[in-house]
Amino acid sequence: MMISEKMKPMIQNSSVIRAMFEEGIKMAAIYGKENVYDFSLGNPSVPAPECVKQAILAELEQTDPGLLHGYMPNAGYEDVRQAVADSLNRRFDMDYDASNIIMTVGAASGLNDILKTILNPGDEVITFAPFFVEYVSYVKNYDGILKVVPPDTKTFQPDLDGMEEMITEKTKAVIVNTPNNPTGVVYSEDTIRRMGEILTKKSQENGQPIVLISDEPYRELVYDGVKVPYIPKFYRDTVVVYSYSKSLSLPGERIGYLAIPKAMTDSAEVIAAATIAHRILGSVNAPSLMQRVIKRCVDQTTDVSIYDRNRNLLYQSLKEYGFECVKPEGAFYLFVKCPGDDEAAFCQACKEEHILVVPGSSFYCPGFVRISYCVSYEQIERSLPAFQAVARKYGLI
Amino acid sequence: MMISEKMKPMIQNSSVIRAMFEEGIKMAAIYGKENVYDFSLGNPSVPAPECVKQAILAELEQTDPGLLHGYMPNAGYEDVRQAVADSLNRRFDMDYDASNIIMTVGAASGLNDILKTILNPGDEVITFAPFFVEYVSYVKNYDGILKVVPPDTKTFQPDLDGMEEMITEKTKAVIVNTPNNPTGVVYSEDTIRRMGEILTKKSQENGQPIVLISDEPYRELVYDGVKVPYIPKFYRDTVVVYSYSKSLSLPGERIGYLAIPKAMTDSAEVIAAATIAHRILGSVNAPSLMQRVIKRCVDQTTDVSIYDRNRNLLYQSLKEYGFECVKPEGAFYLFVKCPGDDEAAFCQACKEEHILVVPGSSFYCPGFVRISYCVSYEQIERSLPAFQAVARKYGLI
Repeated sequence: MMISEKMKPMIQNSSVIRAMFEEGIKMAAIYGKENVYDFSLGNPSVPAPECVKQAILAELEQTDPGLLHGYMPNAGYEDVRQAVADSLNRRFDMDYDASNIIMTVGAASGLNDILKTILNPGDEVITFAPFFVEYVSYVKNYDGILKVVPPDTKTFQPDLDGMEEMITEKTKAVIVNTPNNPTGVVYSEDTIRRMGEILTKKSQENGQPIVLISDEPYRELVYDGVKVPYIPKFYRDTVVVYSYSKSLSLPGERIGYLAIPKAMTDSAEVIAAATIAHRILGSVNAPSLMQRVIKRCVDQTTDVSIYDRNRNLLYQSLKEYGFECVKPEGAFYLFVKCPGDDEAAFCQACKEEHILVVPGSSFYCPGFVRISYCVSYEQIERSLPAFQAVARKYGLI
Repeated sequence: MMISEKMKPMIQNSSVIRAMFEEGIKMAAIYGKENVYDFSLGNPSVPAPECVKQAILAELEQTDPGLLHGYMPNAGYEDVRQAVADSLNRRFDMDYDASNIIMTVGAASGLNDILKTILNPGDEVITFAPFFVEYVSYVKNYDGILKVVPPDTKTFQPDLDGMEEMITEKTKAVIVNTPNNPTGVVYSEDTIRRMGEILTKKSQENGQPIVLISDEPYRELVYDGVKVPYIPKFYRDTVVVYSYSKSLSLPGERIGYLAIPKAMTDSAEVIAAATIAHRILGSVNAPSLMQRVIKRCVDQTTDVSIYDRNRNLLYQSLKEYGFECVKPEGAFYLFVKCPGDDEAAFCQACKEEHILVVPGSSFYCPGFVRISYCVSYEQIERSLPAFQAVARKYGLI
């Protein structure tokens, strides 16, 4: 047998996802692409802002190719890390310098780096349903155990009492993702403050700090002027995992960072170990040209108003048709309750109207579906009669 | 304690390397950069060929930014993988198609992907001293055990009898690196053929295939018309790990591939598992713009004649001064025997003449030093009196 024992079950799982993906292609071939409403992917529909192209052109003109495409310290170019630190300091009143920032191959790489840094086999990591299912693999990579706090399906705010009960002596970390994939919910300042208080208390009881890992690729994608609390301000042992995949629409380029605050327990050691983890897991360093682009575009974001327009149209329409859904304040997803509470039947009903959505059980929250509105406004407009048809089937209108 | 038990010893080790690096900076500050001869780094000195810049410009002009910087299948863009497959088929008479190629975040990521794919805890991986020391970490990442065949310090060809004796029922893989870092030696066709025969026999005895992992970032850096055998032609269960770091001078960009031949045992499963490993280890996909650059530059290489000129000057000079060294046929390193067999004393003697080299013990081969000639020709010229002075100290001239 060629494949390791750990990888075998993953191949099975992966073919399910692939089957879903191929279903979409098949439907497009049968009905025509414009008659299939694919809301399944989280791929940004708004292109990278013009500053990205200009930054690449400027780097090609101005930077020596040996430097532009060459090795640099594993944590990234010093000047790029300083630019990221300065931007965070300006925006969130932090005291980062270059040494606190490790440029990573997107957020997935940053999450792996910090989990490898801190987890001993058998250590527990807590997260909140619904959540990005890859956390399961990331934690398993280092023989950790992911424990999931059940969702509050009314508000999709984290159940802090549930978290507190779940903490044991083996709890090494908690992962939060706000703005949240798949719900679009943003955790309030009050929630973050209370979470920090519980973690502080429990860390003291355990005689060992619990690391709060803030996975925040959607930080810049927020609406209605909502504020996303900067978590290290509320809890000292916080590591921020960031990606420019959404804020600059660069998901394929794999560029992000880890921010490990000075105030964190054993900060220098955590930084050193995370840098080594980044190297030995095979990333070595974040892609060099994209690092230099980040320096030039550090305070830029993609045009979030386009997602906001999508959000408003889709949310208002679905509510009007009688669907239940928490209004998302961030990210680019709606998390809609399945009428009749039968997820498989609802997904099938959608598919019959050529609507593709992701079942909530993929996020450990069955009975819901995720609808990604990072699509064209026209696709949403075209899809509305199909959503109405589904609503009619369920007697909602 | 924040750091995991596994990471703790690595921090120690890493500070030793850092100390060496800082020593170089300190020396440059004291004596002037032009009077310090740093031969310690493997960072390509020949810039990326012009086709890279032209490819980036063409992609920026012609490709939709959503596609250029967006998500694609985890294994990479289909057309890029097909272009890589076509190039390999043309050059090595293989039968790859896109499905056999996984674009990776450089060779380090490819090595991690394939090791995660195949290793169960306690499985053994064999390699040959001297070798790139990161193999130790890559194998440990998946709880494998790296076993090292001692070097043949006369020729630095692999000791195949030593390999055969080292193979047990637990042997899951053998890693070879030819052209070799740090020796510059290229394994001959006869060597590869014999290695394949032994592995075939031992795989049959074990009732389980031993995977031959060919780590070949230096394939294109060869001199004197030497041919580097294409290993999958000689042994069916070969996985090729490639990087464009050296051939296109793009080490900072982190772009390479895994090639998993159709003929390999359980080929489709290995491909599926390696693709998943690539995703869950956090790489997700190889950087998108650089993938598209590879498609446009797939048969290009940097100007290898520049390294050849460096090689000839440095090799001939060192031989003339009485140093012992196998003439390298590839890569951009000389592996020089320490006169008096005292590595630390020799490194110190070099340092006194402002020459920085890497001790052979860093490659599990004490008594030698690695001299990287991926530097400017002028640096080599300037350094020759310093090497002469070292030779004089040892009474070689």
